[in-house]
Amino acid sequence: MNKVLRVGIAGLGTVGASVVRLLHTQASDLAARTGRAIAVTGVSARDPGRNRGVDLSGVDFFADPVALARSEDIDLFVELIGGDEGAARKSVTGALEAGKSVVTANKALLAKHGLELARLAEETHAALAFEGAVAGGIPIVKTLREGLAGNRVARVYGILNGTCNYILSRMELEGLSFAECLADAQMLGYAEADPTFDIGGFDTAHKLAILASLAFGVKLDADTIAIEGIQHISLADIEAAAELGFRIKLLGVAQRTGHGVEQRVHPTMVPLSSPIAQVMGVTNAVTVDADAVNELTLVGPGAGGMATASAVVADIADIARGIRSAPFGLPVAHLVNAEKSPMQRHEGGYYIRLAARNHIGAAGAIATRMAERGISLESIVQRRKLYGDSGADDSVVPVVLVTYATTEASVRDALAAIVADGHIAEKPQVIRIERE
Amino acid sequence: MNKVLRVGIAGLGTVGASVVRLLHTQASDLAARTGRAIAVTGVSARDPGRNRGVDLSGVDFFADPVALARSEDIDLFVELIGGDEGAARKSVTGALEAGKSVVTANKALLAKHGLELARLAEETHAALAFEGAVAGGIPIVKTLREGLAGNRVARVYGILNGTCNYILSRMELEGLSFAECLADAQMLGYAEADPTFDIGGFDTAHKLAILASLAFGVKLDADTIAIEGIQHISLADIEAAAELGFRIKLLGVAQRTGHGVEQRVHPTMVPLSSPIAQVMGVTNAVTVDADAVNELTLVGPGAGGMATASAVVADIADIARGIRSAPFGLPVAHLVNAEKSPMQRHEGGYYIRLAARNHIGAAGAIATRMAERGISLESIVQRRKLYGDSGADDSVVPVVLVTYATTEASVRDALAAIVADGHIAEKPQVIRIERE
Repeated sequence: MNKVLRVGIAGLGTVGASVVRLLHTQASDLAARTGRAIAVTGVSARDPGRNRGVDLSGVDFFADPVALARSEDIDLFVELIGGDEGAARKSVTGALEAGKSVVTANKALLAKHGLELARLAEETHAALAFEGAVAGGIPIVKTLREGLAGNRVARVYGILNGTCNYILSRMELEGLSFAECLADAQMLGYAEADPTFDIGGFDTAHKLAILASLAFGVKLDADTIAIEGIQHISLADIEAAAELGFRIKLLGVAQRTGHGVEQRVHPTMVPLSSPIAQVMGVTNAVTVDADAVNELTLVGPGAGGMATASAVVADIADIARGIRSAPFGLPVAHLVNAEKSPMQRHEGGYYIRLAARNHIGAAGAIATRMAERGISLESIVQRRKLYGDSGADDSVVPVVLVTYATTEASVRDALAAIVADGHIAEKPQVIRIERE
Repeated sequence: MNKVLRVGIAGLGTVGASVVRLLHTQASDLAARTGRAIAVTGVSARDPGRNRGVDLSGVDFFADPVALARSEDIDLFVELIGGDEGAARKSVTGALEAGKSVVTANKALLAKHGLELARLAEETHAALAFEGAVAGGIPIVKTLREGLAGNRVARVYGILNGTCNYILSRMELEGLSFAECLADAQMLGYAEADPTFDIGGFDTAHKLAILASLAFGVKLDADTIAIEGIQHISLADIEAAAELGFRIKLLGVAQRTGHGVEQRVHPTMVPLSSPIAQVMGVTNAVTVDADAVNELTLVGPGAGGMATASAVVADIADIARGIRSAPFGLPVAHLVNAEKSPMQRHEGGYYIRLAARNHIGAAGAIATRMAERGISLESIVQRRKLYGDSGADDSVVPVVLVTYATTEASVRDALAAIVADGHIAEKPQVIRIERE
């Protein structure tokens, strides 16, 4: 049996306390699996006195997480403080500089400074592991970094934010508005008081940046990601999607294209029959399309103290066993720049919902504008007839178009022309379609 | 850069040729990921001259796989011969005895001799890896061994045989008989000329034995598994399942119970809304219920040359990186005996389809026999009235019962009494229900 692995944990919120609990309850099994005992020897938290329901007797308490990170008395530093600067960044940097391995679940820190931290870890031969940073308990980091090592990945996409998926699921299942579902999510603790980070797609983008780096060997760069949130999704869209055989999910998608790796976060129409469409509530899912494995989907809890702790403890166990992989799969020197693939060049099908004025000739004009840009329509659904027996009037008629594969530029151009024609009463709603 | 990892491959069928191809096409990426070049330096196959569409120039050919396994010129032996004795067993044993790491996708060999091979690998400090042996391209071995290291697993279950899932899916989707679907599966190459191994559940049992060992730390013992195949599933069952909100899948299930780890393979009613119910065709899926992660499901290709090769190459890459985990997660000395948990003690819900004679009092007698054993019925569906206006006759009426949780012993006992009552024209059909 090798010597004890001494673990220091900074941040004792729900995840941190769960990590302490799992390391306790699974201690003998973990020792057998890894060949060495794993002991929490130091912790740092804002309130040392708070009862967290875990036994911290004999554990050193550090007021300063950076001091814990650099302490001679730990071998491995677990950062669960959160935030992309301040104590989190300083303590992780400090631990790596001191040659100590780091486990973190901090996606914001990684999305912003992951490359620099990976470089530092390489220099000091320390491990930097972050399974818990993406999709909570789902082992997608290990799967991309190790499990699919023999594959060339074509696309990775997923439901990476439980709050958004909870809201979209409830809107569909209960016919509620976005605002009502958001309020419930806040009440249940699934959404923050300021929900922008989740519903605006920024949390998903942080996770996608990490997945894209692992899948495609590109340098982590959250600024290369095109981001749209779910705040403009209406019940009308959700109902139209169901009728057309789709379901709306907020997806993070990274895929190889002829012009670099496209990275984007937006509400997406996915076929009702796809595995990802079945994922409801706060559950997360990630699908990888790759040349050898074809299609692999992982479904599991995307958040929660115990699920994230499961990932953190797996990272700790790997480090105890001596596993050292490059943090992003490839050594930093092999990672290439991620070019921002402009959304205008995105190719795919589109769902378009228009509020058409009840003018004679409106339907024809809309279809003509699409045809002029070479856009083929897979379907047109019009809720009421565009002009009645009594001729044109001032009412507004919803028209839903589904296009075959085309480019974003063509769609935007056609919609600009349709708006200019004066047949549209509201800003068109555009949702991209993602097929298996 | 460390020295080259020299790989010897025995068996150049579709998987073997795909492994050679992936090691070629992914060579530079694999070298960057693992820190060393990986080269195929020796192969062994029945027909040295056959064109396999892969470049084997400069690779030594061995007529005898055991000679390749023991050769001084390889560091890692890949066994893709198949079979649980003979050349496969001898060559794997030979390689491990010589201290060489082994990668295999041979579930039959592992189910029968896995424990002895793991012990040998421990003695000679060699790696023994077998991701490809269970669920093809799905990284479930790595997930159980490493990704869920912090969890106590309560249950692992899955669709582990693509042939059976293809047959059950087609029966449902096209309303065809078992025999018709089996014939098609044979024509498409999904099923062997003698399909017993697949449809009888034995292939699933081999894979389940491996999963159970990894999940629960029990000694691999395929003899402890209760096995039923899908050969007696009729279209009537599939249609009744759909009406009741279920779908029939052949599952391998291993779960902790009050009396040891229960391991069983049988056709199973799963709720239509569960992730595993969505898995159609030759696709495989595995769900793990565990204390920290709660529920995790992996869905992907269960067979096929490239998918299995993806798993084999991931194992090779891990070994190149120096990753050494105990083959079954825990060292052999820590694995405990798997006691055979008798199916009579199984607890769960049951679907029962009876061909009731059109006797006055039959329905009441059936219900009474169930009630006498304390079995509560969740539903009774009777296709036609049990006795018509004209009184009893000789016709037979299908009656479908769904029970609440009870024991297998109670169900079998009640059915024996019902049969003895003389109200039943055919052997009762019994299918266990597995809930999320």
